[in-house]
Amino acid sequence: MSLPEQMKAIVFYGPQDIRTETVKTPQIENVTDVILKVKYSGLCGTDLHTYRGHIKGPVGQIIGHEFMGTIVAKGSAIGDDKFQVGDDVLSTFTVQCGTCWYCVHGYSGQCEKTNTFGKVGLAGGQAEYVRIPYALSSLIKKPETTGDVDDSVYVLMADIFTTGYYGVKKIVDFSKQSPTANIKAQEIGDLTVLQLGLGPVGLCALRALKHFGFKKVVCVDNVPSRIEEAKRLGAYKTINFDTEGDALKEFIKNETQGVGFDAVLEVVGAPQALKTAYDSVRRNGFISSIGMAHDQLPFDGLECYLKNINISFGRCHAWSLFPEALEIFEELKGEFKSFIDYKPRLEDSKEAFDLFDKHKVNKVVFDLT
Amino acid sequence: MSLPEQMKAIVFYGPQDIRTETVKTPQIENVTDVILKVKYSGLCGTDLHTYRGHIKGPVGQIIGHEFMGTIVAKGSAIGDDKFQVGDDVLSTFTVQCGTCWYCVHGYSGQCEKTNTFGKVGLAGGQAEYVRIPYALSSLIKKPETTGDVDDSVYVLMADIFTTGYYGVKKIVDFSKQSPTANIKAQEIGDLTVLQLGLGPVGLCALRALKHFGFKKVVCVDNVPSRIEEAKRLGAYKTINFDTEGDALKEFIKNETQGVGFDAVLEVVGAPQALKTAYDSVRRNGFISSIGMAHDQLPFDGLECYLKNINISFGRCHAWSLFPEALEIFEELKGEFKSFIDYKPRLEDSKEAFDLFDKHKVNKVVFDLT
Repeated sequence: MSLPEQMKAIVFYGPQDIRTETVKTPQIENVTDVILKVKYSGLCGTDLHTYRGHIKGPVGQIIGHEFMGTIVAKGSAIGDDKFQVGDDVLSTFTVQCGTCWYCVHGYSGQCEKTNTFGKVGLAGGQAEYVRIPYALSSLIKKPETTGDVDDSVYVLMADIFTTGYYGVKKIVDFSKQSPTANIKAQEIGDLTVLQLGLGPVGLCALRALKHFGFKKVVCVDNVPSRIEEAKRLGAYKTINFDTEGDALKEFIKNETQGVGFDAVLEVVGAPQALKTAYDSVRRNGFISSIGMAHDQLPFDGLECYLKNINISFGRCHAWSLFPEALEIFEELKGEFKSFIDYKPRLEDSKEAFDLFDKHKVNKVVFDLT
Repeated sequence: MSLPEQMKAIVFYGPQDIRTETVKTPQIENVTDVILKVKYSGLCGTDLHTYRGHIKGPVGQIIGHEFMGTIVAKGSAIGDDKFQVGDDVLSTFTVQCGTCWYCVHGYSGQCEKTNTFGKVGLAGGQAEYVRIPYALSSLIKKPETTGDVDDSVYVLMADIFTTGYYGVKKIVDFSKQSPTANIKAQEIGDLTVLQLGLGPVGLCALRALKHFGFKKVVCVDNVPSRIEEAKRLGAYKTINFDTEGDALKEFIKNETQGVGFDAVLEVVGAPQALKTAYDSVRRNGFISSIGMAHDQLPFDGLECYLKNINISFGRCHAWSLFPEALEIFEELKGEFKSFIDYKPRLEDSKEAFDLFDKHKVNKVVFDLT
């Protein structure tokens, strides 16, 4: 199958300056590459970091790390038993070699050769075609489509559902630990969880928490539409921190015997969120932080010691966790249909970024079908 | 049994100023109190914090939180089915109420009413007699003495062995977590552990690590006698950070495939130790910090995120963990005989503190028998 010489793609030029342009179509460069014809490509909250200028973006680069599509070309090392031209596949938001210590041990997010689509050195997937290096450890065949759910939901698997699952898995692991040999771990349904942040990752995480049997999940954000979505997905209580300032303290006092939350899922990364996590978690509780923190931590060593703090940070190991996250996603995907509330064409990139930036839409997925 | 009106005790007056004095013997004050006649009373590394003036001490107060002895009086709420006058008992270094949320849930170190012997408001056990509040949840009957081990070793159970066990238990819990559903957790014997600090708590922790099957425990300190003791207790490798500066980096490079340690047990609390822990743990590894940290943490949020750091802080839940720690201690106590290398009388307090302060002895236990 010969590829067209040129294609459309969304290119980053600077803060508030992204453009849909005609660029060269990618080609197979290495024997483990695959070229995908993109069907759906999402706009992730992290794309806003560069769009808003908070993080330096890759000028002149195609952006986007959430996509799925159809294999149209593959390198000589990709056997037909693995992938065939014509296969519909999902991609992780990162590439990973599949063979280094971290990949082998289940921590693919730390792969020695990892990169993220749309970052420096790896063209992204907000494009008609995208090159996938290390395709054997970056792609997975799309499950058979069933019911009335179209393939656009699988864009959530690339990053946000899997990242949400990663944060939740750590809470599940923590919940299984017995404090002593004679005291059983509390039942999951009895544990209180505070979730800070209801962006797309947060909403996926909330649904995953519910899937695992957590009942008392209190969600905090300040965007009304997100809060509505959290209610739909089963939040036990929602708190708008702009307008319900004391509600969190009241909940801790009245519904946790004053001790605080057993666990906090922190999906923001800002120091204020980490501080709220510290203040709200019970002594000996657990903070699962999947937000990308940048600053000095808002608690010192003595505060951590005195409160017996347990905390886990870091980027999702998307490839390592893909099979188990996908198994859960297959059960839940129908609930995410309404989650994607704006499906523009690639040409509408300016409007799409603008609406997403202003929280006027929850989740944007470019439709290239 | 009537108690003498006066007794000998070691009283803190200020940095480098501790004195053995004659003071009033404690009496039963509450129905849940017990008065112990002390048999052995230890000098803990944390006693040096006040002795050296690093932490403000309780001026005019009897110090000491490691002791065991014989019940000589008890309050009316202590039934004979629990304790009888004449029983030899061990005490935790803390008191705890036994009934608050934290005590009930296995986190007695966070008891709402906890205090530490020898701190403000609770006279310590470097004395002939000591009052034990909340005795039902602060004392445990001494196991039958067997072999040629005298009761002085049980002083280690009050704090240092139990605290070491707490730090180790967290590493054991972490080691059981599978990174993914399809990848089994590594075998304990294959895991590399870096232990920072070989004071008495550290040496107990090392022995507990060995008990659980950890084989590759690398121990770092700068006191030659401690390092010798660590070798005897089964350290895989010891490093004197004063004289073997590059040995840690070399070990990581040569014996961990360059990835770093699976877990770090941090038994110091100083920022340099926490920084070494951060630098030496592998990405996605675990830091169990039982040293009492005081300062700003020597890593920021982004560093934690980029390295997928897992870290747990805090004070030991001595009462909650006492039964399981004691079960292990009973197996190991013979190995700790030589550990206590100085057994002065209460009158020798000045010399005892001085020798301990200068690292001329490993472990001091006052012999009151």
